[in-house]
Amino acid sequence: MTSSQENERRTEALGPNWAQCDASSVRKAARSGKLNGPTSGLAEGFVQANLAILPASDADDFLRFCQLNSRPCPLLAVSEPGAIAIPDLAENLDIRADATRYKVFHDGKVIDEPYNISEVWRDDLVTFALGCSFTFEHELLASGVSLRHIETGTNLPVFNTNVPLRPAGKFSGNLVVSMRPLNAKDAIRAVQISSRFPLAHGAPVHLGHPELIGIDDINSPDYGEPLEIKPDELPVFWACGVTPQVALAEAKLPFAITHYPGHMLVTDISRHSLSIL
Amino acid sequence: MTSSQENERRTEALGPNWAQCDASSVRKAARSGKLNGPTSGLAEGFVQANLAILPASDADDFLRFCQLNSRPCPLLAVSEPGAIAIPDLAENLDIRADATRYKVFHDGKVIDEPYNISEVWRDDLVTFALGCSFTFEHELLASGVSLRHIETGTNLPVFNTNVPLRPAGKFSGNLVVSMRPLNAKDAIRAVQISSRFPLAHGAPVHLGHPELIGIDDINSPDYGEPLEIKPDELPVFWACGVTPQVALAEAKLPFAITHYPGHMLVTDISRHSLSIL
Repeated sequence: MTSSQENERRTEALGPNWAQCDASSVRKAARSGKLNGPTSGLAEGFVQANLAILPASDADDFLRFCQLNSRPCPLLAVSEPGAIAIPDLAENLDIRADATRYKVFHDGKVIDEPYNISEVWRDDLVTFALGCSFTFEHELLASGVSLRHIETGTNLPVFNTNVPLRPAGKFSGNLVVSMRPLNAKDAIRAVQISSRFPLAHGAPVHLGHPELIGIDDINSPDYGEPLEIKPDELPVFWACGVTPQVALAEAKLPFAITHYPGHMLVTDISRHSLSIL
Repeated sequence: MTSSQENERRTEALGPNWAQCDASSVRKAARSGKLNGPTSGLAEGFVQANLAILPASDADDFLRFCQLNSRPCPLLAVSEPGAIAIPDLAENLDIRADATRYKVFHDGKVIDEPYNISEVWRDDLVTFALGCSFTFEHELLASGVSLRHIETGTNLPVFNTNVPLRPAGKFSGNLVVSMRPLNAKDAIRAVQISSRFPLAHGAPVHLGHPELIGIDDINSPDYGEPLEIKPDELPVFWACGVTPQVALAEAKLPFAITHYPGHMLVTDISRHSLSIL
């Protein structure tokens, strides 16, 4: 789907002000099935969350894993087992229907990519909502830092690294990072701004020399699309929400659910409220 | 003088706890002539200041110059004309004797490097006290960031750049920067820490590619000494207090005084109080 087709669809579901609308409008449109596309750019004032949903028997390990690796796995909220409401995230939430799309895993393999998970819901499922870099990207743009992947309308390049995570039970692996090319001035400003948002991955984890974190070819991302780095720019790397997704898949749990990439849960948490300064 | 001879002299003047002593002890020792060496490492809890002392007839332009170029020229205090006391900086200050050494300029040329300027003092002289990077270096070290020039006991490499300053009256020129080699993790941490100290030059002005700010040979500093950059490190550049010194010399004022390099005024301002966060 082209981005103008996507925007038509958004306008149909949310009206012409989909960028400025309330988070609850997005969730309502997702729940009714009117909206099933990516959430980037929707309800800009609100925090979007990555989702990991897994049986209570694995939840303690995953919680510990997130705590040990808070840079890639910043925890916004954890549900009670079986609860479809998570008051810390949003009013009247139905976690089974309010994200626009999901991925269902059996033994680490994707078996379905549904728009609603009511049919596979279980009373022992625990939902983890993790922060996402959309939150600080808004602040970067507002501060005059331009982000090439937004200008080109492409997916951010994302790389596996050789930086080991701290393991917890079944969960382990290496850090996954996103890369944004920035000139020195913008890189320094981006460190300042993203540092204010620890619940959105916080400060960069690396800049400059990609090979030092095990990235051999900066033009061949493991996920997303390549992005030009101009001669006056440095690659700047942030911990990425793909990290827990990979760890979850590699743990090969009998059953697990995540959001579909780019199709996040739009929460009622105001973006500004996540800034620690 | 070797650094162990220097430390012997410090111990003689200030006792064995010269690193932890009060600012007033340093000033008293300077005023009595017992201490006339560099101030780096003395009275660590207190802010040290660069000094620019010039006739009232040039002071308005210089004040405007500092305001327009606050990154290299962060103003801690400005005196009344002729005043030897500056209550905002220290109790019982005698600006003519309390720094350990000075430079006296006629028409932009150094004509003397005395330990006391009482004999050349004039009733129209205005003192500008400018912040210095010693302040955030302490915080970097305390946070586990190692600084090579401190480990090697050499002077920080300092470079002229092609970044123009904003001119005011007789004062103009290009930005002068100091360089500290840091690995990516420490560079990111250093941006965070130094950002908290706008009155000590604040965040870096550049990192990576030196040629982008007009530095052709990173191994040939214009002031100070060269410093190795290891393969996993980036050169990180901060605005430097040499900037106003160069602008002052180039303005070729009939009369001006500065502190002697490395021989700063130790103020009563606590280092921690300069942190904005």
